[in-house]
Amino acid sequence: MPSEPSRLLVGVDIGGTKTAVLASVDPPFVLERIEFPTRPARGPGPAIDLIKKGIRELLSEQLSKGVELGAIGVSCGGPLDPIRGVIQAPPNLSTWVDVPITAILEREFGVKCQLENDANAGAVAEHRFGAGQGCRNMVFITMGTGFGAGIIADGRLYRGANDMAGEIGHVRLTRSGPVGYHKAGSVEGWASGGGMAQVAQRTVAAARRRRERTVLKGKTITARDVALAAKRGDAVAIHIIRSTGRRLGEALAILVDILNPERIVIGGLAMRLGDMLLEPARRVMRREALAVSAETCQVVPAALDERIGDVAALCVAMGV
Amino acid sequence: MPSEPSRLLVGVDIGGTKTAVLASVDPPFVLERIEFPTRPARGPGPAIDLIKKGIRELLSEQLSKGVELGAIGVSCGGPLDPIRGVIQAPPNLSTWVDVPITAILEREFGVKCQLENDANAGAVAEHRFGAGQGCRNMVFITMGTGFGAGIIADGRLYRGANDMAGEIGHVRLTRSGPVGYHKAGSVEGWASGGGMAQVAQRTVAAARRRRERTVLKGKTITARDVALAAKRGDAVAIHIIRSTGRRLGEALAILVDILNPERIVIGGLAMRLGDMLLEPARRVMRREALAVSAETCQVVPAALDERIGDVAALCVAMGV
Repeated sequence: MPSEPSRLLVGVDIGGTKTAVLASVDPPFVLERIEFPTRPARGPGPAIDLIKKGIRELLSEQLSKGVELGAIGVSCGGPLDPIRGVIQAPPNLSTWVDVPITAILEREFGVKCQLENDANAGAVAEHRFGAGQGCRNMVFITMGTGFGAGIIADGRLYRGANDMAGEIGHVRLTRSGPVGYHKAGSVEGWASGGGMAQVAQRTVAAARRRRERTVLKGKTITARDVALAAKRGDAVAIHIIRSTGRRLGEALAILVDILNPERIVIGGLAMRLGDMLLEPARRVMRREALAVSAETCQVVPAALDERIGDVAALCVAMGV
Repeated sequence: MPSEPSRLLVGVDIGGTKTAVLASVDPPFVLERIEFPTRPARGPGPAIDLIKKGIRELLSEQLSKGVELGAIGVSCGGPLDPIRGVIQAPPNLSTWVDVPITAILEREFGVKCQLENDANAGAVAEHRFGAGQGCRNMVFITMGTGFGAGIIADGRLYRGANDMAGEIGHVRLTRSGPVGYHKAGSVEGWASGGGMAQVAQRTVAAARRRRERTVLKGKTITARDVALAAKRGDAVAIHIIRSTGRRLGEALAILVDILNPERIVIGGLAMRLGDMLLEPARRVMRREALAVSAETCQVVPAALDERIGDVAALCVAMGV
């Protein structure tokens, strides 16, 4: 008797810089992967053509081995409508205005296609396969250019009324301060990679006026520059990271008081910077949040590393 | 054929001032109700005896009518352990140290007894029978001496890892300010009834120095005094309420950005003060929170009024 054909899952991870299309029969393991630049300035058309072409390539390779296409999952920055499957001009894809991506791919490939925002999909990925395994209540934080969160409540993804739950990056920490998410003094302004770059600019200018030594210089200092300098022991860079960590801790305390999670898993910068960022964050969190909730909550870097976008898209294909 | 006997539900609402014991066969409707002072200074023993006596009285009345006892629900301030059914010295019942209330009542009456904290039980009550009916995602805020919240996520009560979810009262709004929940500048410090009393004290002192007219005076001004004065048109009292409303709006914005609920239902002060408090709150919430989430979220007073403690305890008996 022939064995049942394996079910191929296709994940599509659409970012502002690049898009990946990948195939798996056994998530989180990826069989094949195709990547190309998204080039949002050209509008969604060319990228969608490349997505279709990529999926066809993966299929032609896999179908010959007796697998059949099971489902497609798309992970993308918000805002988007996961029910209708429509991408609604996210900041990093501003030309993608009301793109019905799931209808397009369902028509093309004849299988179910799901869309989910990347913070939510990342939360499911870390919960299912990464640092959140075994947790009933977990928050996953994306700490890159922006600062967002996905919430796992009682073992399931919590989306809120408009798929907008978890927008801790928009919450105010101070009356004024660095700008993030169009808001001065917000969590994204203080504690994202973009916020760290703003803080770095000012801190470095002040350090240079005081004639402190630092390798950081130039008109634009990125979070990556700061991370590299800190790894080489640059005191000003270390100071910037610790200060970002303390602001991160204030954001964690708010999440801990409101959501009382067992674990907070932090992706992006936290994976690269580790305890240099997370120790000051944990310290401030313990000082600011309710003791019993803070003691319960572990704060750890994400485990899926560079693979998180891929695994997140596969989780959407599996059904979140 | 005789009809099936009705199932009697008993609710026990334990507060710092008074305790109510009540019976229902058809929540939220109450058949009978007994109330007595809790007197926490005497320790839990005498109150627990009165609870048992009260339940026996309700039973003797109802059992004769052919109903049988189905379940008991206890609603009480936190911290408490809903799994083990233990009250853990809440601030307003500080002598109730590790009281295994559900085991005590189960042994006495031979039926299932459940314990839940009052903010969570109130959230379920408003969701099931009050202003939150029909909502999938809702937050219920208790705005009395303290400031807490219960969260309904995807139609179910969300408790968090230690039953501590919803402690928005502990979240910081400012570096310093009125004290609430042992924290200066917290939401409870600024926006609870207790916080309003602190703000009133200072505002009235300043108004008197400026020789502004107000009926508010004396060493201790309560939130109730402010509410009564405002209803009679006292300008200083109205100013205090609006200023509390704006701080309430900052707290609502945090909940809206993180939880993206369809509705926030506010009990306690909000039921008495209505739009005088809620309009400034809504305005600040719309300014501070993400537009799409703020537009989705209705902010309304609780509907169950004085009955909320009773109905909350019955909801615990029904199973939350």
